Amino acid sequence: MSDQSFTPIQEVGRQQLIDSLMQFETSHSATLIKGIGDDAAVFRISDYLSGLLSTDSLVEGVHFDLVYTPFKHLGFKAVTAAVSDIYAMNGKPDLITVSVMLPNRISLEMLHELYAGMHSAAHFYNIDIAGGDVAPTLSNMIITMAAYGTAGSERVCYRSGARNGDALCVTGDLGGAFAGLKLLMREKNVWQERNDDQFEPDLSGFDYVVGRQLVPHARKDLIESLDEAEIIPGAMIDISQGLANEVMYLSRASGCGIRLFEAALPVAPDTRSAADELQEDVDQFALHGGEDYEILFTLPERDVERFAGLFKDFVVIGKIVPAKDGILLQTAEGEMHEITLPG
Amino acid sequence: MSDQSFTPIQEVGRQQLIDSLMQFETSHSATLIKGIGDDAAVFRISDYLSGLLSTDSLVEGVHFDLVYTPFKHLGFKAVTAAVSDIYAMNGKPDLITVSVMLPNRISLEMLHELYAGMHSAAHFYNIDIAGGDVAPTLSNMIITMAAYGTAGSERVCYRSGARNGDALCVTGDLGGAFAGLKLLMREKNVWQERNDDQFEPDLSGFDYVVGRQLVPHARKDLIESLDEAEIIPGAMIDISQGLANEVMYLSRASGCGIRLFEAALPVAPDTRSAADELQEDVDQFALHGGEDYEILFTLPERDVERFAGLFKDFVVIGKIVPAKDGILLQTAEGEMHEITLPG
Repeated sequence: MSDQSFTPIQEVGRQQLIDSLMQFETSHSATLIKGIGDDAAVFRISDYLSGLLSTDSLVEGVHFDLVYTPFKHLGFKAVTAAVSDIYAMNGKPDLITVSVMLPNRISLEMLHELYAGMHSAAHFYNIDIAGGDVAPTLSNMIITMAAYGTAGSERVCYRSGARNGDALCVTGDLGGAFAGLKLLMREKNVWQERNDDQFEPDLSGFDYVVGRQLVPHARKDLIESLDEAEIIPGAMIDISQGLANEVMYLSRASGCGIRLFEAALPVAPDTRSAADELQEDVDQFALHGGEDYEILFTLPERDVERFAGLFKDFVVIGKIVPAKDGILLQTAEGEMHEITLPG
Repeated sequence: MSDQSFTPIQEVGRQQLIDSLMQFETSHSATLIKGIGDDAAVFRISDYLSGLLSTDSLVEGVHFDLVYTPFKHLGFKAVTAAVSDIYAMNGKPDLITVSVMLPNRISLEMLHELYAGMHSAAHFYNIDIAGGDVAPTLSNMIITMAAYGTAGSERVCYRSGARNGDALCVTGDLGGAFAGLKLLMREKNVWQERNDDQFEPDLSGFDYVVGRQLVPHARKDLIESLDEAEIIPGAMIDISQGLANEVMYLSRASGCGIRLFEAALPVAPDTRSAADELQEDVDQFALHGGEDYEILFTLPERDVERFAGLFKDFVVIGKIVPAKDGILLQTAEGEMHEITLPG
């Protein structure tokens, strides 16, 4: 080691860590268009076609808990996480590779369930699982996926493409996956406290949010509809960490400000019921809950109505404003709040 | 879990595990040409161009030991392992992604050393590190790479392309990386037994084999020379697990037998010295030692001499025979031995 100082990784923020690793980025090949810093890397295939490559990991104890996650669901979710990065570039995923690190408490049968879930997802997204490896590890199980896809070169959407005056849109609804996670964690705690083998988790009536957490679906349909409508969004990003986080990334990459309308945030009735049950604020779920795998995108105002005629499952939740106006949440009462990230 | 039986993964052989996972393989996308079962997946990009995608993991305690592996070397080796899979398909790597799972004893400075090594390798192979992620893990450090590359569609080489009468060739020399590993492990044991902070490992005179273990180089030069000579090998595979293993894979995929000539196995003088020092049989190192990242390939007899005129660093070590003749090692005395895998 040339450098003897020791800075614990936990003391370094995620963005600071990525920034510090980008110092090593230099371009050697002639094909790379965009490396680190978006949902996927973009590279030249031909004059008309761009390749997309991304990687994602699910770590046991960080991203999933085997106490309440069936292996089949975990497999489906892993593939969703992988392809979502390609959709978030307005691309079409073609294939993924999967590396699984297995502690010895995982059996061959469990691994088969995981693969059954992955292949069910591969069928759903019309992609192939084209390779992978399995290796032993000492403690937590880890699934790392790489996804490859393509997009017409002029159709690739970056985080940096938001323009002043654009409408900020989002697919589906928000906060459901986080509400599901909260309920699953609550039931796990009850189970652990009671230490009762016969324990049955009480999740009745919460199928929707539990499903959003355990078996999320990526927005293939959005990308297909945009293609059909011949509409190209300005900027795109998928909602994996949470709306507030993704809005920050978009603002930073595009050099713009953002106004979010709190009343417009799409929340499913079942997510609202779950928040009520948990006695928590559903707007916080919608703002900060991750893993919904919805897509946040910007459209010029003139395209919004035309696209809404073709694709129903999106709403306008804000607009792009000059950078000097910052990132603000406008409440139903017209008050303005700064959006801050917890922690 | 629908299946309540528990088969420990350790009781399942590597090949049996891969076979059992291939039951889930079905083709959904129109682009896949070859999925699991070769060094990389192959897919259609255009009439003339094929895409290649592979993944590889290095697991601490299985593939590397931080006691004697500098982070910079580990970074270089990770990239070598990743690009070697693309070369082994007769392709040209363009970019890789890297996912690093970090236990909290790894500092930011160590991670920077790792990245410095990876970028040094990226420069050497003329590729880009186009993305990745860093996530926490509880025990052993894990590095997972995905590599993307391309090859002219008619130039892609599979494990299955060996034909009766072809010459079996290998680049460079064999067993060096394993000899280096043995010496490093010996010094680690001495250090642990003495429990002495001032301990200096005795590796003088063994720079070559230690370098083969810690900083292996993949055979970019072979692929470039084959292209220049307009020669396309029948079959190709890289030597990551060891010659005997790779020969088995080739035989199985091509449906052929193989005759290896023991006297022809290329061994560096320094590897021989290391084996003498360790009082071990250097031929076993050459047959079973892994991680040399050399390339094993077959050529029709007529191409061997022509190619040798252009590219110096390969030798003929055997020939392809009918399947019924099996896999045999012919000693210098003319005796025939079956090749078996240890364990």
